[in-house]
Amino acid sequence: MSASEIARDIQEQLATGDAGAILDRIGRLQPFDRAEMLAGLPHEEQLRLVSLLPTNVAAETLEYLEPELQYRILDHLDEHVAAAVLQQMSSDTVVDLLLALHPHQAARLKAWLPPEYRQRLQTLMTFPENTAGSLATIDYIAAREGWTVQQALDHVRKVGHEAEVVSYIYVVDARGRLVSVASLRELILADPRAPLSSVGRKDVISVRATADQEEAARILSRYDFVALPVVDNHDRLIGIVTVDDIVDVIHQEATEDIHKLGGSEPLAESYFKTPVWLLFRKRVGWLLVLFVAQAYTGTVLRHFEATLSQMVALAFFIPLLIGTGGNTGSQTVATLVRALAVGEVDFRDILRVLGREVATGALLGTVMAVASYVRAVTLGVGFELGPVVALSALFIVVWASTVAAVLPLVLHRLGVDPAVVSGPFITTLVDGTGLFLYFTIASLLLQAG
Amino acid sequence: MSASEIARDIQEQLATGDAGAILDRIGRLQPFDRAEMLAGLPHEEQLRLVSLLPTNVAAETLEYLEPELQYRILDHLDEHVAAAVLQQMSSDTVVDLLLALHPHQAARLKAWLPPEYRQRLQTLMTFPENTAGSLATIDYIAAREGWTVQQALDHVRKVGHEAEVVSYIYVVDARGRLVSVASLRELILADPRAPLSSVGRKDVISVRATADQEEAARILSRYDFVALPVVDNHDRLIGIVTVDDIVDVIHQEATEDIHKLGGSEPLAESYFKTPVWLLFRKRVGWLLVLFVAQAYTGTVLRHFEATLSQMVALAFFIPLLIGTGGNTGSQTVATLVRALAVGEVDFRDILRVLGREVATGALLGTVMAVASYVRAVTLGVGFELGPVVALSALFIVVWASTVAAVLPLVLHRLGVDPAVVSGPFITTLVDGTGLFLYFTIASLLLQAG
Repeated sequence: MSASEIARDIQEQLATGDAGAILDRIGRLQPFDRAEMLAGLPHEEQLRLVSLLPTNVAAETLEYLEPELQYRILDHLDEHVAAAVLQQMSSDTVVDLLLALHPHQAARLKAWLPPEYRQRLQTLMTFPENTAGSLATIDYIAAREGWTVQQALDHVRKVGHEAEVVSYIYVVDARGRLVSVASLRELILADPRAPLSSVGRKDVISVRATADQEEAARILSRYDFVALPVVDNHDRLIGIVTVDDIVDVIHQEATEDIHKLGGSEPLAESYFKTPVWLLFRKRVGWLLVLFVAQAYTGTVLRHFEATLSQMVALAFFIPLLIGTGGNTGSQTVATLVRALAVGEVDFRDILRVLGREVATGALLGTVMAVASYVRAVTLGVGFELGPVVALSALFIVVWASTVAAVLPLVLHRLGVDPAVVSGPFITTLVDGTGLFLYFTIASLLLQAG
Repeated sequence: MSASEIARDIQEQLATGDAGAILDRIGRLQPFDRAEMLAGLPHEEQLRLVSLLPTNVAAETLEYLEPELQYRILDHLDEHVAAAVLQQMSSDTVVDLLLALHPHQAARLKAWLPPEYRQRLQTLMTFPENTAGSLATIDYIAAREGWTVQQALDHVRKVGHEAEVVSYIYVVDARGRLVSVASLRELILADPRAPLSSVGRKDVISVRATADQEEAARILSRYDFVALPVVDNHDRLIGIVTVDDIVDVIHQEATEDIHKLGGSEPLAESYFKTPVWLLFRKRVGWLLVLFVAQAYTGTVLRHFEATLSQMVALAFFIPLLIGTGGNTGSQTVATLVRALAVGEVDFRDILRVLGREVATGALLGTVMAVASYVRAVTLGVGFELGPVVALSALFIVVWASTVAAVLPLVLHRLGVDPAVVSGPFITTLVDGTGLFLYFTIASLLLQAG
């Protein structure tokens, strides 16, 4: 049954006022599905439904809504209910909500939170977007160095309801510095009287709050963790990043790279949420930059106007030769940008990469030279132009491979995202130089002939 | 300290034979780092070190090695030790290992496993690559319907050492069908005497073993689970897919899409593990297909040879106009292929997508028409060619947007991966048609003029 069908059902039940049936129905849905259903209801019904729900269920449902709708619901609920719901939402969601609101709206919500909690949220809100700190939640379980296993387990039973991840218990010293970590499994399997310090591991892998979110994603995927502690510059534990947020980061980074490789600015929102004028704005910049860069192909061609007038058939192969160069470059760039993104390749490997790509380019260039020769023959200009076109294809393919191998590595080294070297970018770059190679070879061979 | 530095240290300690110091050192490393260090040692030292380790530590280290090295180590260990290590490795790793080996090697390893375990592995080994079943592990905790919470917790204490994920306990009926799921947190917080059926939730979200791994990834990211139960066609629980494997799937699928969008077959291995001849093979196929498809640009140009001879300056704008068309198409294709991959767009949306892309194309086309006119003027051929080039730019950009909007959706509908409509593919496709538009407009306007 789809979300909209369930929404219709529940709307009917709301009309008849059978609260028991509604709660039973809602209780069986996953929070995500419940949120999707809720988003499909008219605003009045949204408020009635949320008021019916226990506050913890309302909170886990609101988690999955957009900040705007979260606020519209919280704003209209009875203030005591709204405050209870807000306090039970996970802290990273609350941070995102507060950051999305107008300051006076945010101030209103903040007033509902206990001072100490508000203080800790404030810390998380200072980290810029795309840092590990901006993803962190404070709904983790911390235990004190010096406790016994039993004390830690009692603590889990007490605060476990609020924590987002109960698989790990983070042990901190008196100054709040992270000293060890134990899994819930290890605690359950250990002797309850044993000191907490005897369980778990001391060399805790963590990430700095100011590190890039990609760094957090890399660590978490490398070690197969479900949560990663986030520390400040004094090694004090300030939160954890959970694997579900990292899954979102990995998706988001891949989307950004794909959009960039396609030659446009990445979209921040999903496709249908991006209005046409924004699609236009994200694309027109690069399109104009590429146009200006490519405009010099006209200059190159005008430079060779005499050669071209002498033999108009040379023009027949312009799209084919520069197209092949662009395609080769695009293949190489896609491979290397991805290899850089997942950390398989680094600037230090530049000579090795160059060697491999030039070798591959030489093989590909040889094949394309033969293909070009055949095409010249079938177009009926093989005798004159065959050798020119074949030789140009070889040079252009090797040249495109070289540029496409070096450029992403150099940009990565300079701290520029290598994905800006998109397919269109490399195509544009090798078009003009390709034409220059082609007409130079043509002038030389045809004069000699 | 890097993996190779630690490896050198440990090699020295192996030479002096101080087993205690080695174990202490090794114990503080994460399994991933331990594996990286181990992979850097000479084979003899690898064997000595693994023999020193407790079998469970050896097993979690071997997890992160390549199947070939896993076998080389297991094969040379004392058979009792090797069998114990193998039994403690996670079942999905063992399945991957067995599938990678020659049948007689696999048979040798299988003989070390208890018959019932071997039987269950055999089931997992029947699922083709890239299905949810192929990712599944049987190292989960199952409890029987009818138990109490206490019985379930005792069971966790008993078998928890072997399970990969102890966050969830899966409850099955007498026939092995999945009836409910409870989190370890819920069990710990519940009354120990309560029936297990009163804890957790009944409507369990699961995935069929034969479903695509992307389907499993989508469900898991949607609901923020750390593990997803995998069932056979009779709803019997046969394993779980864990979030760490899903993170790998998401990475892998993004890599494949990026390679395809760049116009080559995706690489199965990492960049440096792929030899040059394989890079060549993965690229040459598409390069030739695109060459043949693009070869008709020569035919189009020969068709307009008379027009071209009359005005050679027309050739100056060939790369610029078809390049701009290709760039526009590449932008649209990248956006839509990604939107299809993450499920934001579907074939049913085709009219809406088309409307948006044509509108965006019209805006972009207008800007590019102005830019093209300016370029014609600066090249000194504006009076004659300005209007021709500007009008062509507008038509080509709108046309490229249309093709790039429709094609990925249609292919997706036909069950073909839309990522085959790469940037190079769409560029090639609009090159010939773009030239046709350009020269047709030129013939019409210049004759009229």
